Amino acid sequence: KSSYISVIGEIEKLNEDPRIHGLLLRLCRESYTNLDFTSLKNSLWPIVYPFMYTYLFFSFVFFCSDIEISRGQAPKPIHILAKEIGLLTEEIEIYGQTKAKVRLSLLERLKDQPDGKYVLVAGITPTPLGEGKSTVTIGLVQALTAHLKINSFACLRQPSQGPTFGVKGGAAGGGYSQVIPMEEFNLHLTGDIHAITAANNLLAAAIDARTLHENTQSDKALYNRLVPLVHGERKFSAIQLARMKRLGITKMDPKTLTADEINKFVRLDIDTSTITWQRVVDTNDRFLRKITIGQANTEKGFSRQTQFDIAVASEIMAILALTSSLSDMKERLGKIVIANNTKGQPVTAEDLGVTGALAVLMKDAIKPTLMQTLEGTPVFVHAGPFANIAHGNSSVLADKLALKLVGKEGFVVTEAGFGADIGMEKFFNIKCRASGLIPNVVVLVATVRALKMHGGGPNVIAGVPLKKEYTEENLKLVSDGCSNLLKQIQITQQFGVPVVLALNVFRTDSPAEINLVCEIAKQSGAFDAVPCRHWSEGGRGTMELAEAVRKAANQQNNFRYLYDLELPIVEKIRIIAQKIYGAQDIELSPAAQSQINCYTQQGFGNLPICMAKTHLSLSHMPEKKGVPTGFVLPISDVRASIGAGFIYPLVGTMTTMPGLPTRPCFYDIDLDPDTEQVKGLF
Amino acid sequence: KSSYISVIGEIEKLNEDPRIHGLLLRLCRESYTNLDFTSLKNSLWPIVYPFMYTYLFFSFVFFCSDIEISRGQAPKPIHILAKEIGLLTEEIEIYGQTKAKVRLSLLERLKDQPDGKYVLVAGITPTPLGEGKSTVTIGLVQALTAHLKINSFACLRQPSQGPTFGVKGGAAGGGYSQVIPMEEFNLHLTGDIHAITAANNLLAAAIDARTLHENTQSDKALYNRLVPLVHGERKFSAIQLARMKRLGITKMDPKTLTADEINKFVRLDIDTSTITWQRVVDTNDRFLRKITIGQANTEKGFSRQTQFDIAVASEIMAILALTSSLSDMKERLGKIVIANNTKGQPVTAEDLGVTGALAVLMKDAIKPTLMQTLEGTPVFVHAGPFANIAHGNSSVLADKLALKLVGKEGFVVTEAGFGADIGMEKFFNIKCRASGLIPNVVVLVATVRALKMHGGGPNVIAGVPLKKEYTEENLKLVSDGCSNLLKQIQITQQFGVPVVLALNVFRTDSPAEINLVCEIAKQSGAFDAVPCRHWSEGGRGTMELAEAVRKAANQQNNFRYLYDLELPIVEKIRIIAQKIYGAQDIELSPAAQSQINCYTQQGFGNLPICMAKTHLSLSHMPEKKGVPTGFVLPISDVRASIGAGFIYPLVGTMTTMPGLPTRPCFYDIDLDPDTEQVKGLF
Repeated sequence: KSSYISVIGEIEKLNEDPRIHGLLLRLCRESYTNLDFTSLKNSLWPIVYPFMYTYLFFSFVFFCSDIEISRGQAPKPIHILAKEIGLLTEEIEIYGQTKAKVRLSLLERLKDQPDGKYVLVAGITPTPLGEGKSTVTIGLVQALTAHLKINSFACLRQPSQGPTFGVKGGAAGGGYSQVIPMEEFNLHLTGDIHAITAANNLLAAAIDARTLHENTQSDKALYNRLVPLVHGERKFSAIQLARMKRLGITKMDPKTLTADEINKFVRLDIDTSTITWQRVVDTNDRFLRKITIGQANTEKGFSRQTQFDIAVASEIMAILALTSSLSDMKERLGKIVIANNTKGQPVTAEDLGVTGALAVLMKDAIKPTLMQTLEGTPVFVHAGPFANIAHGNSSVLADKLALKLVGKEGFVVTEAGFGADIGMEKFFNIKCRASGLIPNVVVLVATVRALKMHGGGPNVIAGVPLKKEYTEENLKLVSDGCSNLLKQIQITQQFGVPVVLALNVFRTDSPAEINLVCEIAKQSGAFDAVPCRHWSEGGRGTMELAEAVRKAANQQNNFRYLYDLELPIVEKIRIIAQKIYGAQDIELSPAAQSQINCYTQQGFGNLPICMAKTHLSLSHMPEKKGVPTGFVLPISDVRASIGAGFIYPLVGTMTTMPGLPTRPCFYDIDLDPDTEQVKGLF
Repeated sequence: KSSYISVIGEIEKLNEDPRIHGLLLRLCRESYTNLDFTSLKNSLWPIVYPFMYTYLFFSFVFFCSDIEISRGQAPKPIHILAKEIGLLTEEIEIYGQTKAKVRLSLLERLKDQPDGKYVLVAGITPTPLGEGKSTVTIGLVQALTAHLKINSFACLRQPSQGPTFGVKGGAAGGGYSQVIPMEEFNLHLTGDIHAITAANNLLAAAIDARTLHENTQSDKALYNRLVPLVHGERKFSAIQLARMKRLGITKMDPKTLTADEINKFVRLDIDTSTITWQRVVDTNDRFLRKITIGQANTEKGFSRQTQFDIAVASEIMAILALTSSLSDMKERLGKIVIANNTKGQPVTAEDLGVTGALAVLMKDAIKPTLMQTLEGTPVFVHAGPFANIAHGNSSVLADKLALKLVGKEGFVVTEAGFGADIGMEKFFNIKCRASGLIPNVVVLVATVRALKMHGGGPNVIAGVPLKKEYTEENLKLVSDGCSNLLKQIQITQQFGVPVVLALNVFRTDSPAEINLVCEIAKQSGAFDAVPCRHWSEGGRGTMELAEAVRKAANQQNNFRYLYDLELPIVEKIRIIAQKIYGAQDIELSPAAQSQINCYTQQGFGNLPICMAKTHLSLSHMPEKKGVPTGFVLPISDVRASIGAGFIYPLVGTMTTMPGLPTRPCFYDIDLDPDTEQVKGLF
């Protein structure tokens, strides 16, 4: 207790010192184990609070368990953080104490400000447990901002809420590299995924309702309802006039349409067997993977088989991640192709008249959400598209806003899902194409554990304790497994961007293992390779990485895309398969070939490619570790997200709806009604 | 322009006058038609703004169309309103500029403060167009607070987002009696309905997943998964121990259970034919009215037929509306009965282990949302349960918070859905029972239009122009139709609360018609009867009503419930049918009788009754207007919302999922990407 009082005294003295610009207070476990944790926090808060206004960053951190870490750190009020990073009051929309949406008007205000440095965190081929890209991302910005005093921003994907209650649990980094408060990050956040769900399902409902109405009404009845008499007059709405224009009908007066024109106008003639638009929920609901809808009498027998996907698999999520403005988003929403008509032409959301309503539902979701790391540095959380059927990267808009906010010497660290062969390839070829931004550095995350797996170690299975190969020193396995690391470094180098290896160190890794990996990485062409201890030490444990990244960012940058968009779809798929995955060739199923022909003929041939492949191997076979060679990549089918702007070939079947296991996470999740604290989410 | 400058001069003078406590500025159409509307508003704002801090209420109102009214009024920043009504900074959670959630800790802080007066707004049997209960509610609080300087609060239901894009359009009052901004009120608001959807669907997913796992695993396999080895040890979670207790197993060590005890513990044995828990979406999606789920191979043939309801039909919405605290909500969530087991015993959310997770998903939804009327007076928007299969009233918590905030002399005006025979009856017998609150006054809303319909006027159909009987004076129809008014007044009197008639005046109503209605109402026992012109005049048009309500609130109050909870379910249904609807008797289908027996035997016989009946007639036949007599009310089925705490008999079939028409509202809805304004929502 006496040491605790002397700590407070010290802080009070610092408070008077004008030279002090920030403060990181750490209390080791011994100094407070006998104290009441909450009362300690409450006593410190009034002293700490004035710092918030005075200094750029202030943090106090306690050493304790994951859950205690997140709770032990009182997040600074979000309007204070917003002020610290230079946001004006009218540029933020506060959501509670710890979240705020940032308005896009900021881009206009800072349009002449040069961008900061742009850093991508990618990974080697991971084990099913994940290798810590999120924690490296957070640790890196904590090191840059809270320790090296360089402005930085982390841009993260918003996690899907469904899996939080299924197998996976929460996702907000971990240890001393977290986004706080964890429960806000993992639950509704600011409602973006709910908005996507609403927009997605409105479009789905519009498709089936329209089909029903077309199937049960004459042209005349449809026309009279679609262009109704209001105060004795019929008028086309704006979106109907736009459709008329696409149909080549230039008349403005509804009375003058011929029967043939009316027929063209009222009938979308959707070929229901080609509908690719699914309904979504943000719940792990396996019974919705295949369903039959429309079985009530009111739907008059027009039932059909379809499915629900998890909300983050919606194309609208991919659109949110790739859009650059409100008007661009509206245009992309309108371009969504939901099916073909009976003549084989694409039918869009715009044809259904629903573009404006979708944009209205998404008008707040387009604004990135500001949160903070455990050390009080800023984080944008925005968009979280699937990493297989979509591109698995956070939003272009969050990156753009952050690049302006950090200023020329600052850093924006963004993360790509899965291994570098998938998430990073899509980051470059899809996201950077959409944004026009050029990345300065790639941080490649590896673990000794994953390298040992690639070197021939036993299977790593979630929920099953690791075999001793993973907990004891084994230099042979590590060195053999570095083949995957080498290959991923080579993949990165094809894009002309310097790469820094971040070895995410576990307690059981030996110094020899750590050295070996770093040496091999450097020999393989990495600009630098450093061990990171952000999990146990926060930003202090990633300072070496921060220094390496800073140096790499000043390197010559030869960024280039992997392929030319104008190449045929098949060629683009082959380039990715051969140059990235190391495949010998690709093999298209007849379905895939026919879809490619269809998309090409419809004019969508010049879109980038978004491969839907497993992340557990460079190949399509999850069990093939290291660097598989000599395989032929089978393309079973090809689909398109025209609004988002990519073609996605399916390499095998992709599950777009997770399920609940026998004992879901929710057995441990609870809410304390007195303290309002969430328990068991981590 | 000169008059506009002189207006500003006047305001500036007022600003210096310490006797001025508020200001309502109205500009007539002539004074600004030649001005640029936006620039006028922007010029006024800097002058108006300081008032916000000084005076309790400030408003400036322009005369224009509905949509212009909502946009023309710049809402005051919500933190300013919160301060005006006495909320502390730490008691609110701001959501953007115009919405804030209010923390329940306020109830504790103000627990010794006496409650204000409690006013219910109900209606006569309406036409399909609605008779204006919401606008009366808003007009009344505008009159009380902005004009009579009496603290008041309106408590409204949150509208479902789905119908906003279907037939109905938005709901936020209208004319000069609106909640602003309309688009925030009608769209995501603060995410409560999304939270309900998430919680509802997690429970639904848990039911089917559990059934699948039980059907495909041995007792031992289930047990090993439900109580897994973690670090070499098996442990029950808290919610599993609670289930053990209910099963009469008092052991704490998972190793000691007998095979029989394990069987009891692991098998919920849900009888899937009895599942009453449906999935929900907040979208008008008619194709989800009847569906078959579980048709993917991964579900191993355990498909079944089910349905989606619109989100506000979820029992969780009814729970939100009736709960009194976080711990009460958690308890109610746990008590939700989702099906019977194969032995005919109820299976609950608690049995599925999901109570805590549901509470976590609902932890923010339980806090009411603060918004404002067009005249800057405070509004709580909270919960919006269906008015047929649920009780159709806004939340108990919002009413309780508001009653404390307005103080002893203040007024809280809350609204019940449908006619008084349904919404008000449920308000008294279900909501007031749950809250323990005693209402002081009922305001009964009528229109000349609805009375003419009851008097034998032609059908009133949404979307079809009104017949001339409704637009020309017709005293005979009015006087005949007052039978319905008389009956609804008598219904109110059975509860011992004084009733004031609010005649919502339309432009086409003649003075003689208005007088006739008011006279008949007064002769029929109404405490007072007054015409209201809040639509065209805002609070100024409802001042007479406000005075009448104030007087009525000082009357002797003899509030009583209609029936004793301990009566058998059938008796309670009969009392409502006879004393409220005027039925001769009730007739139970065999299904209804068997469900009543089942619920009684399960111990749910002492719950209040929530009738699911049409609102378009006092009887079960929507076409029977006026006061139908001599009918026998058919009860086709009986269901239960045990968590919410009521039994709901079905009088005919109830649609719980609206559909999209041929031309949904969304054809007119659009977002201006430059101004970010929503168009066509009204």
